[in-house]
Amino acid sequence: MTSLPRYAYLGPAGTFTELALRRIVGDAPVEDVPCVDVLTALGSVRDGNADFAVVAIENTVEGGVTATLDTLAAGSSLVILGEVVLPVEFELVARQGTSLSDITRIGCHSHAWAQCRRWAHAALPDVSFVAASSNAAGPTLLADLALSLDDVGFEAALAPPGSAERFGLELLVDHVADNPHAATRFVRVGRPAAVPEPTGADKTTLMVHLPTERAGALLEMLEQFAARGVNLSRIESRPIGDRPGEYSFSIDALGHVAEARMAEVLIGLKRTCPHVVFLGSYPAANAPQTPIVPGTSNADFESARAWVQGLRTTD
Amino acid sequence: MTSLPRYAYLGPAGTFTELALRRIVGDAPVEDVPCVDVLTALGSVRDGNADFAVVAIENTVEGGVTATLDTLAAGSSLVILGEVVLPVEFELVARQGTSLSDITRIGCHSHAWAQCRRWAHAALPDVSFVAASSNAAGPTLLADLALSLDDVGFEAALAPPGSAERFGLELLVDHVADNPHAATRFVRVGRPAAVPEPTGADKTTLMVHLPTERAGALLEMLEQFAARGVNLSRIESRPIGDRPGEYSFSIDALGHVAEARMAEVLIGLKRTCPHVVFLGSYPAANAPQTPIVPGTSNADFESARAWVQGLRTTD
Amino acid sequence: MTSLPRYAYLGPAGTFTELALRRIVGDAPVEDVPCVDVLTALGSVRDGNADFAVVAIENTVEGGVTATLDTLAAGSSLVILGEVVLPVEFELVARQGTSLSDITRIGCHSHAWAQCRRWAHAALPDVSFVAASSNAAGPTLLADLALSLDDVGFEAALAPPGSAERFGLELLVDHVADNPHAATRFVRVGRPAAVPEPTGADKTTLMVHLPTERAGALLEMLEQFAARGVNLSRIESRPIGDRPGEYSFSIDALGHVAEARMAEVLIGLKRTCPHVVFLGSYPAANAPQTPIVPGTSNADFESARAWVQGLRTTD
Amino acid sequence: MTSLPRYAYLGPAGTFTELALRRIVGDAPVEDVPCVDVLTALGSVRDGNADFAVVAIENTVEGGVTATLDTLAAGSSLVILGEVVLPVEFELVARQGTSLSDITRIGCHSHAWAQCRRWAHAALPDVSFVAASSNAAGPTLLADLALSLDDVGFEAALAPPGSAERFGLELLVDHVADNPHAATRFVRVGRPAAVPEPTGADKTTLMVHLPTERAGALLEMLEQFAARGVNLSRIESRPIGDRPGEYSFSIDALGHVAEARMAEVLIGLKRTCPHVVFLGSYPAANAPQTPIVPGTSNADFESARAWVQGLRTTD
Repeated sequence: MTSLPRYAYLGPAGTFTELALRRIVGDAPVEDVPCVDVLTALGSVRDGNADFAVVAIENTVEGGVTATLDTLAAGSSLVILGEVVLPVEFELVARQGTSLSDITRIGCHSHAWAQCRRWAHAALPDVSFVAASSNAAGPTLLADLALSLDDVGFEAALAPPGSAERFGLELLVDHVADNPHAATRFVRVGRPAAVPEPTGADKTTLMVHLPTERAGALLEMLEQFAARGVNLSRIESRPIGDRPGEYSFSIDALGHVAEARMAEVLIGLKRTCPHVVFLGSYPAANAPQTPIVPGTSNADFESARAWVQGLRTTD
Repeated sequence: MTSLPRYAYLGPAGTFTELALRRIVGDAPVEDVPCVDVLTALGSVRDGNADFAVVAIENTVEGGVTATLDTLAAGSSLVILGEVVLPVEFELVARQGTSLSDITRIGCHSHAWAQCRRWAHAALPDVSFVAASSNAAGPTLLADLALSLDDVGFEAALAPPGSAERFGLELLVDHVADNPHAATRFVRVGRPAAVPEPTGADKTTLMVHLPTERAGALLEMLEQFAARGVNLSRIESRPIGDRPGEYSFSIDALGHVAEARMAEVLIGLKRTCPHVVFLGSYPAANAPQTPIVPGTSNADFESARAWVQGLRTTD
Repeated sequence: MTSLPRYAYLGPAGTFTELALRRIVGDAPVEDVPCVDVLTALGSVRDGNADFAVVAIENTVEGGVTATLDTLAAGSSLVILGEVVLPVEFELVARQGTSLSDITRIGCHSHAWAQCRRWAHAALPDVSFVAASSNAAGPTLLADLALSLDDVGFEAALAPPGSAERFGLELLVDHVADNPHAATRFVRVGRPAAVPEPTGADKTTLMVHLPTERAGALLEMLEQFAARGVNLSRIESRPIGDRPGEYSFSIDALGHVAEARMAEVLIGLKRTCPHVVFLGSYPAANAPQTPIVPGTSNADFESARAWVQGLRTTD
Repeated sequence: MTSLPRYAYLGPAGTFTELALRRIVGDAPVEDVPCVDVLTALGSVRDGNADFAVVAIENTVEGGVTATLDTLAAGSSLVILGEVVLPVEFELVARQGTSLSDITRIGCHSHAWAQCRRWAHAALPDVSFVAASSNAAGPTLLADLALSLDDVGFEAALAPPGSAERFGLELLVDHVADNPHAATRFVRVGRPAAVPEPTGADKTTLMVHLPTERAGALLEMLEQFAARGVNLSRIESRPIGDRPGEYSFSIDALGHVAEARMAEVLIGLKRTCPHVVFLGSYPAANAPQTPIVPGTSNADFESARAWVQGLRTTD
């Protein structure tokens, strides 16, 4: 009997993270392992209680979700195996038969409220916000109690897309979002047994400590990328806990460790920086093929290496 | 009659932001203007409904609070006038007479829960979490209803330091925090009438768009800093909404626009980058005097300029 | 009574340097001050015995004429005021009535022989070379003794263009040169009372000592140029006499000290390098207008400076 | 019967180049192949008429001997196998029995005169200079005619050290030199069958064309060196004959192609520059062990490569 792959994620069912998990696995059957937070989800992969975790890693509205990055970079090694990007938008859902004019209180996670408040003030100026413990909590409460007459404290909830259908609720408004560009990036994390094959449109995620704090150290670190024509799609400095003036950098670079130019970048970083953590090479979501600067293709590296090898002949 | 300076902040009273406001103004009398969110707080300064705003700008646990940075960088100009850093730690408070063994449910903002869950699981393994809409909501509810017998849904709350004394509540545990290094940076924002005098330990905050996405553009931008010996204490890339592959960079640099080396950096950025927003030069919190690399003092710039001026004599 | 401007040059009359002097002054009457070597010519300007010197500074065949550059960079200040480039080509001249078939020995300076030997071997395979002390010595001897029957040791001489006409000799072959690209650069040197006005196609000549010998020091020095979009047209390292591992760099950069971008380069170098010698800004010979990289025009510097000045307003 | 190795050099016997040849081969028996110029000497190795050539490549007084470098870089490949540095100093020699007071004319190559004129003016103010075709020509003439009474045109000659003993002449003055730091660098050149083993104090000589003329292209080329901690001991730009605004660079870098850091530099240059010529890795004359920047030793490269190799495992 073959067991299903086990996926840890920030639960309960009905969160954006679960939505990302469904997007990642598609129709393949998996065993869901809902967790109370990102640390627990990642820890369950480290402990062997799950095979993979799906966690939010970046939010174009909120910036990097650095708890995820820090947890990935610390402890025994985990790698990112893939990513998916979801727009930050919500459904306003209610019990069947409810209409917009019935709504006086909206239950949702405070993050959701932060993303939809302007819409709410404009569309439903008299409603108030009731805090829920997760994006799934509102619709769940509404659904669980749908048959009772209990007051759960609010008549409608802001919930991830698909919640109305899933929980059998009334869909009052969809595509609710204050910022149409807001999106959250989720990654699939696993143990580093294997790196996904390069696709030509890949990302490599790294955590790098700088050798010193002097002006120019960051420059020298970035020269390792520029000297091989590798672009970054994200960089964020992070103070190193107890060492004032020292920083680590969380970086997404365009390319795959199986490509010569990225391998050479990693060799250069490893030689010159006190600490480098490889967090995975994986297909980039929604990305065109990475353009390759002249002189940085695998073939360019191979022929240059062969030329130098030819020069090194000694008696 | 002189009116008091009006300070907008993320309310209600009792939040970490209000704590930061008190730390910033000290004993000076001010008029508090609590706001529903950061955008509203900043907007009230732009509108003239407040003179200053105090807002969170960086959280060493959560990364940059980029909504703040984006809002500062967009619209009519606002500048940062000062900063204060508060440790992320909480008090567990309850109605007078409550003891730890009475606690089954803890009310708090989901952010607070994220920072204290490990402590709660270890110290109070059987408690559950009840979501509140802000860090002030829990103690406020407990306090407001202290004389009644109403059940507010929880027996204790995690709240900012000082809440027990402020609301007349029982202090059950103080210094609650999962991560002893966690801290949040708050800034005082105002209209750009005046830049604070340089102190020798200052920060300058900038938002810079890169001219192109090619490897090396970031390098060239950072050379503007390195060529004048200016260190960065923070850098974060941000995608530019509707232009895939283009980025802006949110930067804190050590130094003050009134210093020659920083002024030269700004001149260089302004010349070579399509968009540069100056968000203020202000005293850095908890920072030693900024070391000045040889050749980058005001005197070095002055004497070099005088030398070149002497060379330029023409008939 | 107005005295003529006095021009020191490497004599005697009839050398390439005198040809360069004539090219530089055109029809203007000057007082010639022929000198035995470049050091003497430059020294006579320093001493006040001449107003200007014309000296060779670069030879595309022989590389930099570093004695000139070293002498300019040392001692009291002299600056380059202009340049002229002459092709390295010769005339084969003889006494009137001599024909090619009469030639068995060619007198010339050993430099001239180095530039024409391949031609001589092909065109006159049986001739031999007789050393002369300067490019002018051969034709002078031939001319001086033209009326006598004395044997000066050779029947023909390789001499600078125009020598046949000047000395009344027979022009046997003109445009003699092994390398059609060979050229020598001569400069007009004076006391630094005035820098020539910028023309938009200028050069600035510098001597710069590096602060240290470590990999990267040269890079940092060149970043001062790149950060302002200034191109180099020549760079040559030179060991510093008695300090092993330390180098100075002789540099020609495209632009004029009166232009903002070049002035900023000089300020940057002066701040960060232990020794910088300015050897002049002057019109470049045979050069198109210097292209100005976007963001580096005088107007770009002015508007960026005005912007920063506006930011620096303090109460 | 084994034939002796044949050494081409700039003759005749008695030149500085022959002195360098003797220094290079020591007591080993070789067949001398004196040549009329450097091009002929190098050509004879290319043609198989000699096994090696000894040629001057750099003169700290005159700058790079670029004819040598250009000839090495063009045509079929030759490599530098070793170097020797000789001080530029002379002996004043005369026929036996001559004394200083007898000297009215000194015969020597014009280069020698340029190096000794100041001494001559001070020590022998009334002497004049008679041009000779090489540094060996003066003493040879004096020696050849020593038994005759013929006038060779001068009573003494400035000649390379050792000439008096070699030609049986009177040594009037030794250590004659105007500049005590002047030295000439000579190299031993051969076919690229084998590169000398690394010694830890080696040089690698290169000719590199830049991809474009824009400010920053030189910087990017030098970053290939800096990114691997490789220092330069010489760099000289050279215009590329018929392409205005384009340059090649003649470079000596400290290190050996058999070392990982230098091999990586060469791979980087080969990938990114339109033309790279490797002119040899060989023991540096008079040089201490090359210091190795942390992170750039062979072991550093090996362990970094092994780390990256481990990351690249794919299913």
